[in-house]
Amino acid sequence: MGKVVFDMSMSLDGFIAGPNDDVERLHAWLYDLTSWRERHGLAGGQANPDAEVLDESFRNTGAMVMGRRLFDLAQEPWGDNPPFHMPVFVVTHHAHEKMIKEGGTTFSFVTDGIESALQQAQAAAGDKDVSVAGGANIIQQYLKAGLLDEIQIHLVPVLLGGGIRLFDHLGTEHIELESTRVIDSVGVTHLRFRVKKDAK
Amino acid sequence: MGKVVFDMSMSLDGFIAGPNDDVERLHAWLYDLTSWRERHGLAGGQANPDAEVLDESFRNTGAMVMGRRLFDLAQEPWGDNPPFHMPVFVVTHHAHEKMIKEGGTTFSFVTDGIESALQQAQAAAGDKDVSVAGGANIIQQYLKAGLLDEIQIHLVPVLLGGGIRLFDHLGTEHIELESTRVIDSVGVTHLRFRVKKDAK
Repeated sequence: MGKVVFDMSMSLDGFIAGPNDDVERLHAWLYDLTSWRERHGLAGGQANPDAEVLDESFRNTGAMVMGRRLFDLAQEPWGDNPPFHMPVFVVTHHAHEKMIKEGGTTFSFVTDGIESALQQAQAAAGDKDVSVAGGANIIQQYLKAGLLDEIQIHLVPVLLGGGIRLFDHLGTEHIELESTRVIDSVGVTHLRFRVKKDAK
Repeated sequence: MGKVVFDMSMSLDGFIAGPNDDVERLHAWLYDLTSWRERHGLAGGQANPDAEVLDESFRNTGAMVMGRRLFDLAQEPWGDNPPFHMPVFVVTHHAHEKMIKEGGTTFSFVTDGIESALQQAQAAAGDKDVSVAGGANIIQQYLKAGLLDEIQIHLVPVLLGGGIRLFDHLGTEHIELESTRVIDSVGVTHLRFRVKKDAK
């Protein structure tokens, strides 16, 4: 079985979106990368180390889990051919029929909790990783439940001053991590951590 | 004139102290370093890249500014020979006579604001840098006033879940930074940023 990971762009002050869910500044490093463009059906772009970091995540991921709020927010911009190209499990209180999109993306709606969503995603992912795509709230739930194996933060050198904090509402039990890789680039630093589960 | 900098150990979730001002976990990477021990009057320790990062800051710094709360909190543990060994300017509402400690540390109390404290520290520092030593509140004031040139974060791979956030109450005007150095080590990642002042 693969790992359970998440992968987020975060400002140095800890936000994964600015006020009004604005992610333009935080995702600016992505828009011209070959691997980002390819997933969005666009040609060209820069094939640089950032593109490889992104492509590596995509290659390793076999299924995703996301919260209902992120799904609702992003459904329209994603359109008929969302950039996932894999099974996505949406944690929600409202049952909904499975949606089959173009390009290999499916959305399944899971009403019986985050552990069930993870199990279904792991079954779909096979040997590959499951990525928790966000938002912050669902990532916090997986962190608190001790279900995450690895964290990748794309640290963007900006202080936004407001928005949605990634690491919040976690309780005060320390969650120990181990830095496993740092790749510094222009405009973003990729920090990867292993979650130490038994060392609490 | 030198730069105006700050240099803080921060958890991945953005805290520079845990609940009850506890810094044990965040400062654990420091205690066995030669350069930390030397400043605290202790022999021995590890002479490794972390020790050099710390020593570099110490060598480059000619004076410090701190808030009254940090001074009050730490005055007792610091004792008669505080680990600064340079002039320190304490921003406070309460006038107090200058205190001259052993080992070259002096505490001057500045009642007319952060800009005055910085000017006095710069005069004392000569060609060297002025370091804003904390706490979070005074660093936030200097950041908002656009008076900081450089930030160094010693990123500690732990989620504390609570405590004092370094980057808070900054307003929502973006403060753009540039990553200028990353040194990854065991148990801490040293991230240095330049504050982009004219690129807002």
